[in-house]
Amino acid sequence: MTMTLGELAVRFGCELRGDPSATVDSVAPLSQAGPRAIAFLANPKYVDQLKGTRAGAVILDAKSAGSSPVAALVAANPHATFARVAALLYPDPPMNPGVHATALVARDVTLDPSAEIGPYAVIGAGVRIGARCLVGPGSVIERNAVIGDDTKLVARAYVGPSVRLGARCVVQPGAVIGADGFGFANEKGAWIKVPQVGSVTVGDDVEIGANTTVDCGALEDTVIEDGVKLDNLIMIAHNCRIGAHSAIAACTGIAGSTTLGKRNIVGGRVGITGHITLCDDVIVLGTSFISNSISKPGVYSSSLPAEEAGVWRRIVGRIKRLDSMAKRQRALEKHTGFSALEQDSSED
Amino acid sequence: MTMTLGELAVRFGCELRGDPSATVDSVAPLSQAGPRAIAFLANPKYVDQLKGTRAGAVILDAKSAGSSPVAALVAANPHATFARVAALLYPDPPMNPGVHATALVARDVTLDPSAEIGPYAVIGAGVRIGARCLVGPGSVIERNAVIGDDTKLVARAYVGPSVRLGARCVVQPGAVIGADGFGFANEKGAWIKVPQVGSVTVGDDVEIGANTTVDCGALEDTVIEDGVKLDNLIMIAHNCRIGAHSAIAACTGIAGSTTLGKRNIVGGRVGITGHITLCDDVIVLGTSFISNSISKPGVYSSSLPAEEAGVWRRIVGRIKRLDSMAKRQRALEKHTGFSALEQDSSED
Amino acid sequence: MTMTLGELAVRFGCELRGDPSATVDSVAPLSQAGPRAIAFLANPKYVDQLKGTRAGAVILDAKSAGSSPVAALVAANPHATFARVAALLYPDPPMNPGVHATALVARDVTLDPSAEIGPYAVIGAGVRIGARCLVGPGSVIERNAVIGDDTKLVARAYVGPSVRLGARCVVQPGAVIGADGFGFANEKGAWIKVPQVGSVTVGDDVEIGANTTVDCGALEDTVIEDGVKLDNLIMIAHNCRIGAHSAIAACTGIAGSTTLGKRNIVGGRVGITGHITLCDDVIVLGTSFISNSISKPGVYSSSLPAEEAGVWRRIVGRIKRLDSMAKRQRALEKHTGFSALEQDSSED
Repeated sequence: MTMTLGELAVRFGCELRGDPSATVDSVAPLSQAGPRAIAFLANPKYVDQLKGTRAGAVILDAKSAGSSPVAALVAANPHATFARVAALLYPDPPMNPGVHATALVARDVTLDPSAEIGPYAVIGAGVRIGARCLVGPGSVIERNAVIGDDTKLVARAYVGPSVRLGARCVVQPGAVIGADGFGFANEKGAWIKVPQVGSVTVGDDVEIGANTTVDCGALEDTVIEDGVKLDNLIMIAHNCRIGAHSAIAACTGIAGSTTLGKRNIVGGRVGITGHITLCDDVIVLGTSFISNSISKPGVYSSSLPAEEAGVWRRIVGRIKRLDSMAKRQRALEKHTGFSALEQDSSED
Repeated sequence: MTMTLGELAVRFGCELRGDPSATVDSVAPLSQAGPRAIAFLANPKYVDQLKGTRAGAVILDAKSAGSSPVAALVAANPHATFARVAALLYPDPPMNPGVHATALVARDVTLDPSAEIGPYAVIGAGVRIGARCLVGPGSVIERNAVIGDDTKLVARAYVGPSVRLGARCVVQPGAVIGADGFGFANEKGAWIKVPQVGSVTVGDDVEIGANTTVDCGALEDTVIEDGVKLDNLIMIAHNCRIGAHSAIAACTGIAGSTTLGKRNIVGGRVGITGHITLCDDVIVLGTSFISNSISKPGVYSSSLPAEEAGVWRRIVGRIKRLDSMAKRQRALEKHTGFSALEQDSSED
Repeated sequence: MTMTLGELAVRFGCELRGDPSATVDSVAPLSQAGPRAIAFLANPKYVDQLKGTRAGAVILDAKSAGSSPVAALVAANPHATFARVAALLYPDPPMNPGVHATALVARDVTLDPSAEIGPYAVIGAGVRIGARCLVGPGSVIERNAVIGDDTKLVARAYVGPSVRLGARCVVQPGAVIGADGFGFANEKGAWIKVPQVGSVTVGDDVEIGANTTVDCGALEDTVIEDGVKLDNLIMIAHNCRIGAHSAIAACTGIAGSTTLGKRNIVGGRVGITGHITLCDDVIVLGTSFISNSISKPGVYSSSLPAEEAGVWRRIVGRIKRLDSMAKRQRALEKHTGFSALEQDSSED
């Protein structure tokens, strides 16, 4: 879609420095953008990247605006404004409301006529599907699930029995929402399946990434609150609650019955143990392991950056002998009659 | 389903303390249960949780039974009994034996008439499907696979060529059993695919989680023994053997040709290297890395709990200088003429 | 398929030590192979494994050839030759060129008549599919995607809009190539989706594992170069570039905008942070975390091998007090008037 800079400025409340009749039809990085493309500068720290750009216009903040060699759209939050401009320039393909001839929809499904049910979708008894929903090809929605207005299952999603998805959610391909939680009772060394009688409740404006899995609760629902964004290949186990507007990067696993507060940001490949609570506004750096509840907002980490393998092997050897090293230190202190400045509270 | 407490006591061999004609129809947590719900107390340690429960009945052990303010079903293994009671109260929806009109079943498939083949399932030549199997919507079963009696593929499962699944297995949505193992020969810097001519053999009573993958063996089968429970997003590489009644939590990966003994319990996000053997009764704590064979039953870990990020950064700096620190300690010992109480066997 | 050893020797340029008219029809491990099976010895280090083999023939290098008790095919690269022999003995099932009656192919798709489009495949507008492609059952190919000659989507693959796959690729079941990248702008604590207008470009001879996900680029394409092999359950985030002939093991995640050079080998369950560059010929050991760019070829690691849990708990306690330990060491040095042999550059 083509827009003039003037239209963009009016629509998104930006100050325009440049020709309002100039047009753009695409977005691109600063270094690649041609005169028909719009770029953005999220952080004034990188103002040098403006040099030499040939973009048709740049979205940036007031502080950086003077440095732009091309037309500037000045925004309070350039990244957010860029997101909205890109959504306008790249509209989703038009929907085809109605049920594809090959979709199988149970008789008592409540289906808004503006929804699009794609080929080979299978929709079970008692399901309710809201306005302007997209149920992409090959998706399976089990009995009594509820899909809110404007929610899109891109393709091949699985939505289990009685799962509730809010409005404006996006479910990427291969996501599984509402498989059985992993619950087994041990009896004489063998495992007996504990029926998982809860389901999953997902709020509004939630994104669920490709091949991510959110399991049903054991007794009550697993809950994903409003505005949560889950990347790909994430595991949310039974009875978790993920607080509103939290964002979790790929390959992270959260064990059962754990609660994350609001606005948590969790990096990739993180592990979070079960039955703990993280308060609001916790940030967990990628590849860390959270084993205890966190009651203080802040940034947490246990990531270990790699070294050349020979160096690392030597460090690991030292780590494995740390106990011995500490004991030698204590012995040496005693030998020299030195009373440590810092008393170490541990038993040695 | 509604049951009297008397019926439950008889069926599951519990002592009932309470009115045998009272009825329950659901399960719930102790704190949430109303008078029509049955709850359980797995561990006498948490006996305080019985206080104030309004459950219709509680399943618990003899030690805790006196503390229940409501009707009690006394069981030797309350969790296992609870699992069975829940399975009774929440029966699976009735099956619809037969082949859905949209399912594609090759001509020479051996199909028990009591099995249910769901919509858009695709079943290849030479497949055998046992009694009361469920092949859920969108599942693909390749040529010559065998599915044992009472096994359920919930939806969108993939079962590769010649894979054998035992009886009473449950395969959650999106699981892939029998993709090619990851085998390549390197020739002058490029990779040549090594055909994976093995398949996968899965025993009885196995659960395979959502989007979990179990690869075909290179030459012989990858083997999942009886009673194994695999959570979601797990990778079992080619030629692994997972011992009977082992349970593995989500996001764990096991590299090729590794053998786990019986009754291993592996936490979430664990990595286990290839070509090693773990004996029976090994427990691996979540997020650990097993790099060597284990020949002694026990609990193993290399998990690193997170700290506030600034604190952690300082610790990492110390870890990276451990070699220097150890050398300084040795020098200091020499300087003071101190002969360490504990001789450290390492070369310094 | 049955072949004589003479035919194999001629076809693959091996020296044959044995009867050229002897036949084999299968491959097997040295220890299991019977007289109709061919085995291989990749590494002369394991020459002892030849003892007692009953294989019909063994593929090995010149150095080991004298030790074979059975017929020997002498090859410069026994593993690569074995791969080719196995491919010959176990041919893929014959293709059925054409479009299955249940496949849905948009009107303007360009489809080579030698391609096979399987049941319940859904192929969008503007897609181009090359010669001898296989689009397996339940696969979804979105608008304007391009699939190169001889590429096989085994089953249930998802290929997003405008994704380009080269020739001779293999996509295992459940893989998702071209879901939205994980891009959101934060505005007052909530997340606004940033449209991901790039797609994915995949080179020739690439393997993409089961349930692996490769996301679309934010502005430009995510790129997987020629000859890359990706195992199962891998995450490649938006705007990554994976250099030619790299191989990545299962459960590894690579964050956005990171570039791997050529011939990188990345172990399983590795995390690689975003916006960094690894040069050519980097090897990352399994479960490591790469947080910084690497400019020197070599082997890198931060893996921590497990210990018995009690021992490990004590080590973790020591790690957490490393800062205090270092300070005590410094104080002790001062107390004894000892000037350390190695000055530690850190602030204490």
